Amino acid sequence: MYTSETLEKIITALTGLPSIGRKTAQRIALHLLKQPRERVMDLADALRDLKDKIIYCSVCRNITDHDPCAICANAKREHRLLCVVQEPHDVFAIERTHEFNGVYHVLGGALNPLEGVGPDDLDFRSLLEHIRSAGVEEVILALSATVEGDATAMYVDRLLKPLGILVTRIARGVPVGSDIEYTDEVTLARSLTGRTKMS
Amino acid sequence: MYTSETLEKIITALTGLPSIGRKTAQRIALHLLKQPRERVMDLADALRDLKDKIIYCSVCRNITDHDPCAICANAKREHRLLCVVQEPHDVFAIERTHEFNGVYHVLGGALNPLEGVGPDDLDFRSLLEHIRSAGVEEVILALSATVEGDATAMYVDRLLKPLGILVTRIARGVPVGSDIEYTDEVTLARSLTGRTKMS
Repeated sequence: MYTSETLEKIITALTGLPSIGRKTAQRIALHLLKQPRERVMDLADALRDLKDKIIYCSVCRNITDHDPCAICANAKREHRLLCVVQEPHDVFAIERTHEFNGVYHVLGGALNPLEGVGPDDLDFRSLLEHIRSAGVEEVILALSATVEGDATAMYVDRLLKPLGILVTRIARGVPVGSDIEYTDEVTLARSLTGRTKMS
Repeated sequence: MYTSETLEKIITALTGLPSIGRKTAQRIALHLLKQPRERVMDLADALRDLKDKIIYCSVCRNITDHDPCAICANAKREHRLLCVVQEPHDVFAIERTHEFNGVYHVLGGALNPLEGVGPDDLDFRSLLEHIRSAGVEEVILALSATVEGDATAMYVDRLLKPLGILVTRIARGVPVGSDIEYTDEVTLARSLTGRTKMS
């Protein structure tokens, strides 16, 4: 029960966004009401731009303002090393490590037969096109450590077999900073089978 | 490190809203990117309207789209029973109980000497004006159970003394559904001193 329809509308529009329930939506709306006009208009403009200005890179399918994206257009990156991920936020996460100088390809999801996502729903053709045109020598699969991620990894591995290029996947094991005691058994088992030599 | 300036901008605009950190802001932005254009534009419009259409009721100082607000304009409400609250969200909370048929007055905050909020920063004049023009007979103080709320309650009580009207405050005690065992001592002490007769 609100005393303003306008307030009701913004609260409804905010409710249901990731991690925003009705209570948080109300808090945000009332907070914005107290903010300077300019700040709220900036937010409204940024929302419009989100839909008007963001496009998908024709090479790697990541989101970008310009095609090709800044990573694909960067001559200093190693274009023969290709990291395959599910979503744009995976690219952001890997970029934050500053450990990877190759390029990316964004699948836009993972295979999920239970939810009806099959090979035709993901754009594997653009992946093959990317690999061919860039002369990729190694494909690193950085997919989720889930049933869906694993299924997708196996599918891509089989898909790329005829090309004769190296296909690797990122390591699984005990997260840095974790106690062995508190690591779940599946991860611990993986970390044992995936053990590496001390150098 | 994002691959789109536009995305960076919306994430920055969202970060810092109540209960939204940078991670949640990123999740929301990427979620909106996948939503239909219409839904995102609706949200942008709702934000503009928030600043363009919401005003303050000239009688009770609550937020509203029309002046006077729906509660002040409602002839079926008891205009001689006035509930004083700090913020509009307190009105919403009390309305949800469906237990109150009087009207409200929103102070817009509480006295807080430490943060520099003194009597001149809150609009007590509009409260006195409201009480006089509506012929209020009882003022219920529904202020926060905090040092600031208590200070404000004492101030209003003293302010209204010359008018000779009944000033009450909402009860404090053990929240409904709580175990005595887990109730903090201060609340428990209050619930003892504020005990009422079994009827």
